[in-house]
Amino acid sequence: MSGEREPPREARCDDVRLRGFASRVSLERAVAWVEGHAAALPVEAIPVAEASGRVAAVPVKAPVDLPPADCAGEDGYALRSRETLGAGAYNPMILAIGAAGAALGPSSAMLVVSGEALPPGADAVLSFGAAERVGACLEVFGAVAEGVGVELRGREVRAGTALVDEARVLRPQDAALLARLGVERVQVVERPRVRLVVVGPKRLDGLHLAGDAMGPMLNALVARDGGIVDAAVLAAEGRSALGQAIAAPGDHDVTLVVGRVGTGPDDVAPLALADVGELVLHGVALRPGGSAGLGWAGGVPVVLLPGAALACLCAYELLAGRLIRLQGGRDAALPHLTSEAEVGRKIVSAVGLVEVCQVRWAAGRAEPVGSPEDGGLATACRADGFVVIPASLEGYAPGSRVTVHLYEASGASQARASGTVPGTVP
Amino acid sequence: MSGEREPPREARCDDVRLRGFASRVSLERAVAWVEGHAAALPVEAIPVAEASGRVAAVPVKAPVDLPPADCAGEDGYALRSRETLGAGAYNPMILAIGAAGAALGPSSAMLVVSGEALPPGADAVLSFGAAERVGACLEVFGAVAEGVGVELRGREVRAGTALVDEARVLRPQDAALLARLGVERVQVVERPRVRLVVVGPKRLDGLHLAGDAMGPMLNALVARDGGIVDAAVLAAEGRSALGQAIAAPGDHDVTLVVGRVGTGPDDVAPLALADVGELVLHGVALRPGGSAGLGWAGGVPVVLLPGAALACLCAYELLAGRLIRLQGGRDAALPHLTSEAEVGRKIVSAVGLVEVCQVRWAAGRAEPVGSPEDGGLATACRADGFVVIPASLEGYAPGSRVTVHLYEASGASQARASGTVPGTVP
Repeated sequence: MSGEREPPREARCDDVRLRGFASRVSLERAVAWVEGHAAALPVEAIPVAEASGRVAAVPVKAPVDLPPADCAGEDGYALRSRETLGAGAYNPMILAIGAAGAALGPSSAMLVVSGEALPPGADAVLSFGAAERVGACLEVFGAVAEGVGVELRGREVRAGTALVDEARVLRPQDAALLARLGVERVQVVERPRVRLVVVGPKRLDGLHLAGDAMGPMLNALVARDGGIVDAAVLAAEGRSALGQAIAAPGDHDVTLVVGRVGTGPDDVAPLALADVGELVLHGVALRPGGSAGLGWAGGVPVVLLPGAALACLCAYELLAGRLIRLQGGRDAALPHLTSEAEVGRKIVSAVGLVEVCQVRWAAGRAEPVGSPEDGGLATACRADGFVVIPASLEGYAPGSRVTVHLYEASGASQARASGTVPGTVP
Repeated sequence: MSGEREPPREARCDDVRLRGFASRVSLERAVAWVEGHAAALPVEAIPVAEASGRVAAVPVKAPVDLPPADCAGEDGYALRSRETLGAGAYNPMILAIGAAGAALGPSSAMLVVSGEALPPGADAVLSFGAAERVGACLEVFGAVAEGVGVELRGREVRAGTALVDEARVLRPQDAALLARLGVERVQVVERPRVRLVVVGPKRLDGLHLAGDAMGPMLNALVARDGGIVDAAVLAAEGRSALGQAIAAPGDHDVTLVVGRVGTGPDDVAPLALADVGELVLHGVALRPGGSAGLGWAGGVPVVLLPGAALACLCAYELLAGRLIRLQGGRDAALPHLTSEAEVGRKIVSAVGLVEVCQVRWAAGRAEPVGSPEDGGLATACRADGFVVIPASLEGYAPGSRVTVHLYEASGASQARASGTVPGTVP
């Protein structure tokens, strides 16, 4: 399946334990593999009430006109506009107020509420403030133009109009509009179901270790990307036990294995994957995250993520997240907001590796928080976002322009990025 | 409670049915009431695994150093750097490979994996690629500097360092870092529990009506703002039944009433609220959404939202959402991303009203989709975002600069706003 664009397996899937990576695959190549093996999932029909945030699988057209008939655009009195000709402040036109539901008689007006169909014959609606009710009569103090206060059939939506394009992430208001139009179910792309295989903490006394802390982080990231962790397995450490956990049958669409991917003697995840499926590549020219791997098992793609926390985060963002977004019918690109920024302090990077540099705002400019190989996950907590440095660059000098991917998806983060202060209203 | 800044109740809480609003409160004043009556909720301690997306109620400091001891920064061999002095490509230094767990003997190296504590005496770690193992010995081909490959105790985080500030919306990586540091529970602001009282559809034959379609939209918006709809009640239409639904006891922190707030004969929600609690204001100088109201019942604030769909959306965004965000300890401002834009086609607005204009991108400029009083919810589905026009302005001429609040919180929307195309990597 990957034969055409991948070099032969043995070229890059050596056992790296106690030896190190002889070579690493470019991030571009790893991303190409992900994009070639992350077909969008099947379609499911779900109730409109659950549609917000899901991805439309097919275009949706309005089944009916909205409004379905000429109707009142506001609360007031429906009337025939021509019957108000000649009315004035000193010469009110007197109309009889007819009973609701009856036909609109001559020289009559009828109480209507916003959204209610106009009685036949009526062509305007006068709001309560613009007329005066006196007993059973309405005094109109000025001529009313045809169409005032009326919403014509199909004005909001015409039957057959495209409401929702394919691949749209449905908004709250989309769900409401579809419900209003009587649409009960909507065809969406299934949510990718993710099996998370976290390898137990390494046997290192007295130290707080990363492995079992990655579950909560990955749960949140998978949810952000539209997926759902449908099974989280804490696997035993041995090669065969880990292989069994990777290959165990299930309903999932992708497997993420966290930990045991490096060069230590017990880093058996790549071997375990090769035992039970196919290890397509191991080692990516990415920092942090360079010990990530990709492959197949049980008919679904498998991403091997480093157990080291920051490396896990970066490899998730650049490889696993993309796979999950594509399976779910979403845009492949990183979902973060971005901000163009000037570099405040030099950002250093190695040529030949894509590096992910955590940055924070300092006087409106982006400056690195630690260096890619130093500082660990705490740098990603202290940072406002990150910069992805292409493999061809040595980094960025102060004053360079870079694109910062922002961690916080809100206006507040944006304001800090631009140096403005959010207003009080709105 | 609101005596100081609000005019007397009777000045603006007339029964507007069949009469219209004699006056409306400025949006600024309505927002001030919301801000004065939306105290942050109590604190709860939750497991770190559930913390992502929640709002920290108190600062969190690191309880321990990370790493808690000098440790290996990579997989390799721990050694004494001074013992490698004089090593060279043609003059390798030979070290004995000691057993793991034992003390590091003289002229020895010991296998370590990344994150493992250094054996006493070791001060550098040589990666597997930089040395060669020959039987039980290690050949070192160059002098190693002290500290190479070592992560010193507390390098990532020092005990006592502030990790999380108060009011921070916790990120996935925050949860992971806290878990790594052994923090088990974190103090967060409770999620606002929202009671949604949706008044049944109006008795209008043959028409698709808004009321019951608002539930799904509001559910999604409340979730976006950090709240949770803990009860959704479809209330009967009469004044006393609606009052009962508004006042029914419960665990909620805020009540949203949807529908029956206008000037029609059956628009009894304001009266029902006054019956069972306090109607503080009804009618806001906002379009769409001008029939919104605010008050109290059962000890919690109540927001009356119009049943008309677009008016409901706008009143939620500018009043109810703010209340929920503040109760949950979040930034009060609209949570949408914004983009500064040039106006493409004239945006018309009435002086004296804050208007919400739905806009879309056309050739990189923002142009109105319909007008604020026309087009209904469909305009918010067709739009890329909205512009809030201050009450003091008649609108914006083509070429003016405006702030667009974007509906789609992603890089893709941003790219359309700026006219750029998202790249393939990242």
